[in-house]
Amino acid sequence: MEGNIMTYEEKLQQYKDWIFRRSAYQMALAIIGIDKQTVAPSAGAAYRDERSAYLAGELFSIETDPAMVQLLKELKDDPQIDGDNKRAIELYYKQAMDTMCIPKEEFVAYQKLRDESFDAWIKAKSQSDYSIFEPYLKKIIEVSKKMYRYRNSDKNLYDQMLDDYEPGMTQEKYDVFFTALKERLVPLIQKVTKAKQKNEAFLHQEFPIEDQKKFMIQLLAYLHFDSSWGYQNESEHPFTSWTCENDCRTTTKYVTNDVVSAVLSTVHEVGHAYYEHNVDPKYDGMILSEGISSGMHESQSRLCENYLARTTAFWKYHYPKLQKAFPTQLGNVSIEEFYEAINVAKPSFVRTEADELTYPLHILVRYEIEKGLFNGIISTEGLNETWNKMYKEYLGVDVPNDKVGILQDVHWSDGSFGYFPTYALGTAFAAQYMHAMRKDLDVDTLLSNNQYDVIMNWLKEHIHKYGFRYEAPELMKMVSGEEFNVNYYLDYLEEKYTKLYNL
Amino acid sequence: MEGNIMTYEEKLQQYKDWIFRRSAYQMALAIIGIDKQTVAPSAGAAYRDERSAYLAGELFSIETDPAMVQLLKELKDDPQIDGDNKRAIELYYKQAMDTMCIPKEEFVAYQKLRDESFDAWIKAKSQSDYSIFEPYLKKIIEVSKKMYRYRNSDKNLYDQMLDDYEPGMTQEKYDVFFTALKERLVPLIQKVTKAKQKNEAFLHQEFPIEDQKKFMIQLLAYLHFDSSWGYQNESEHPFTSWTCENDCRTTTKYVTNDVVSAVLSTVHEVGHAYYEHNVDPKYDGMILSEGISSGMHESQSRLCENYLARTTAFWKYHYPKLQKAFPTQLGNVSIEEFYEAINVAKPSFVRTEADELTYPLHILVRYEIEKGLFNGIISTEGLNETWNKMYKEYLGVDVPNDKVGILQDVHWSDGSFGYFPTYALGTAFAAQYMHAMRKDLDVDTLLSNNQYDVIMNWLKEHIHKYGFRYEAPELMKMVSGEEFNVNYYLDYLEEKYTKLYNL
Repeated sequence: MEGNIMTYEEKLQQYKDWIFRRSAYQMALAIIGIDKQTVAPSAGAAYRDERSAYLAGELFSIETDPAMVQLLKELKDDPQIDGDNKRAIELYYKQAMDTMCIPKEEFVAYQKLRDESFDAWIKAKSQSDYSIFEPYLKKIIEVSKKMYRYRNSDKNLYDQMLDDYEPGMTQEKYDVFFTALKERLVPLIQKVTKAKQKNEAFLHQEFPIEDQKKFMIQLLAYLHFDSSWGYQNESEHPFTSWTCENDCRTTTKYVTNDVVSAVLSTVHEVGHAYYEHNVDPKYDGMILSEGISSGMHESQSRLCENYLARTTAFWKYHYPKLQKAFPTQLGNVSIEEFYEAINVAKPSFVRTEADELTYPLHILVRYEIEKGLFNGIISTEGLNETWNKMYKEYLGVDVPNDKVGILQDVHWSDGSFGYFPTYALGTAFAAQYMHAMRKDLDVDTLLSNNQYDVIMNWLKEHIHKYGFRYEAPELMKMVSGEEFNVNYYLDYLEEKYTKLYNL
Repeated sequence: MEGNIMTYEEKLQQYKDWIFRRSAYQMALAIIGIDKQTVAPSAGAAYRDERSAYLAGELFSIETDPAMVQLLKELKDDPQIDGDNKRAIELYYKQAMDTMCIPKEEFVAYQKLRDESFDAWIKAKSQSDYSIFEPYLKKIIEVSKKMYRYRNSDKNLYDQMLDDYEPGMTQEKYDVFFTALKERLVPLIQKVTKAKQKNEAFLHQEFPIEDQKKFMIQLLAYLHFDSSWGYQNESEHPFTSWTCENDCRTTTKYVTNDVVSAVLSTVHEVGHAYYEHNVDPKYDGMILSEGISSGMHESQSRLCENYLARTTAFWKYHYPKLQKAFPTQLGNVSIEEFYEAINVAKPSFVRTEADELTYPLHILVRYEIEKGLFNGIISTEGLNETWNKMYKEYLGVDVPNDKVGILQDVHWSDGSFGYFPTYALGTAFAAQYMHAMRKDLDVDTLLSNNQYDVIMNWLKEHIHKYGFRYEAPELMKMVSGEEFNVNYYLDYLEEKYTKLYNL
């Protein structure tokens, strides 16, 4: 840029101003998104969607401003730049390169399509009718492909998507991962299925939502998720969103005939919230807080959900309170029976309500469908039937309708392809993190003693505070002292279920 | 603009694109504002406030874009422009002229100050400590004055503020209005105070909020305020906000020892919501829907609250349901006793809980304080004591603390000076509208028969659908066939309270 030679300090200032502008639009879009998914009146959706797409376009213009991209390019190679900013600028630069190749009007139209597709999914799910959603799914897949093709990369489209959610991951690597899972889990599941079945019917009595909400108040207090930095709402599909470290929102969904669904989804989402809350505040508004990979994020939410909230130690504290909230329903159920019931492994058709053992198979179905969709092997037409067939094959269950079948998850409605596999990967990460944590902390005693904050603090110091400063493999070495090893996860499952079912 | 001569159609298209851009930022700011006042975690306020101030600045830049202001100037005098757009463009042009004189950085700083001042007010109110809020109030008054001075108008500052909320109104006109009120209401209040007092203690028993919420569900159904176009949340100070005709949000506040507070505030806010909902959709996103004057808006909310919800006819439908919700508290209270109790006229210190008769005096206190503040007669220091003194003088009550004294209202915290008088004016408008409505409809029968929608439809056809197409005086003539006459209001109050108290 001739005639416009800036000093390093001027460049840094321009870069910081740019981050601020970017974060203002991101904040607006985050709040509009939370609003949309929680309380916004449905008839106003079209009006709002059109305008939030416009604002997303404004953000797009900021993110891909050629002068800024040039500045990022210069800054990332400047010897004066510190490590934090170097990492951030590399991420910003990559993001800009991936985005700026897309014509703005197509980007805006895609944002609008995502919103419309979400609205169609809500409608389709409420009517349990895949045909309402199918045209949107077809369109959003077509447009997603087009967006990725603009990058003009040699890499396979779906590999690019996988890499966006978890840097470094590919179909090849996920295939290896899922093969390892199948090898040890399928025989284990078969053994469990043949073993003596546990009683879990009492979990599915009528639990009035009002009473569940009262129990929730004390659960949120236990989690230290308070109104100074967080807020829990309700939505069709639980999620977490945030604007900064001190503004993390979660949602849950109450199910009348399932007393643990809202509890586990709450612990899961608050796990996500803690990650953002605990990122070093110096990264506020920066890609180092907002860009954390999905696998890493899911590792924290699923660590909380599975490795903390599905333990006897956790329920030692909570179960007496739950019994008090539901004396008729649970008064005669012992904590041992309750613990066994919430850990029953039984193939089912709803992912978010699945047990730990069969859960990865739910992910496998989605991963294989996504692979098929983006490699041109599967089409959206009749995909509900394909879905049901795969559930029969992998989990041995008959999906009764689209609502609990292909329409159960929000992800495809907003174009989040490549996200699902990170749930399984993150769960596997979490096992290795837990192994490391247990060397430092007596986790069970802390859980029973209402000291959840001590556990969260360990996660903060070892994982959360870094935000996206490091990628998963590097962080894994820092935390556990070794490379990611799927066997921590498989050993954990084998040990837990062998014991639980006396195999 | 040489070398850039546009056709009329091109100008019109530019104007429409500009309205769209404008409406996108307005929508974002409305949703961020609703979020802030209802659920947003407090510790994130500073982060959010800074960014919403930036977005308000972006809106400012759009609104005051010199090329657009020039275009508006040309369009408003173009003979081809239709009546709707002519009116809208005149309003846009006036707004731009009033705003563009302010330096953008000062405007942005002012938006931030408003948010910070709101946060301080929340804190001050919760601690009942005016001294926490005083520095912000002082600052926001100073800055407001500065903003208005930029307009370089000959008119008195406070007159300009009054005109912004209700076009055409001035201190002179309000003085005449309030004098008329005082002349007839002060003796009436004296007579009522001397008359035999009604029992209303039963309204102030303990009414668990949970049970109030259950009653609320059926009230909202009666009002036809459903989730397709509206949503009710809770907030410290009830308000209504909207993004378009099909997205109108209200809040209410539940008070444990007041069974009608949330009911009346709900009917009030939903009255505002109906106004926006019923504006002709062709005005969506335009100043003709969003710019409706405060007096006109308050006329509709207070029409619903006072002239509909404080009647026997309304409670004929609702009271049996309220009794069912609170059998212990209200089982032995007849509907006649209940009606009398909710209409008891008794000087008190909280405006939003005041009766119809003494309500205008609460407004008078605020009006006189605002006049004093902006004419340099009163200062913010010790204003809580000034407040308390005036309450003693006008209403004869001793204000026990700042929380229910000077800190009770949100308005001054966000710089809404000149708004309060429109509450009284709007209430007076409403009396004249009701007089017109009663010629066409049997309002009482409709209220008792669960036909609230018929009444709302009359308001839609006669008032709401026009949005801000006409100013209050013109609309008043269209609806009632005559000029605004304060005596409709005073006659109504005199008749109602003479009967109620057997004067």
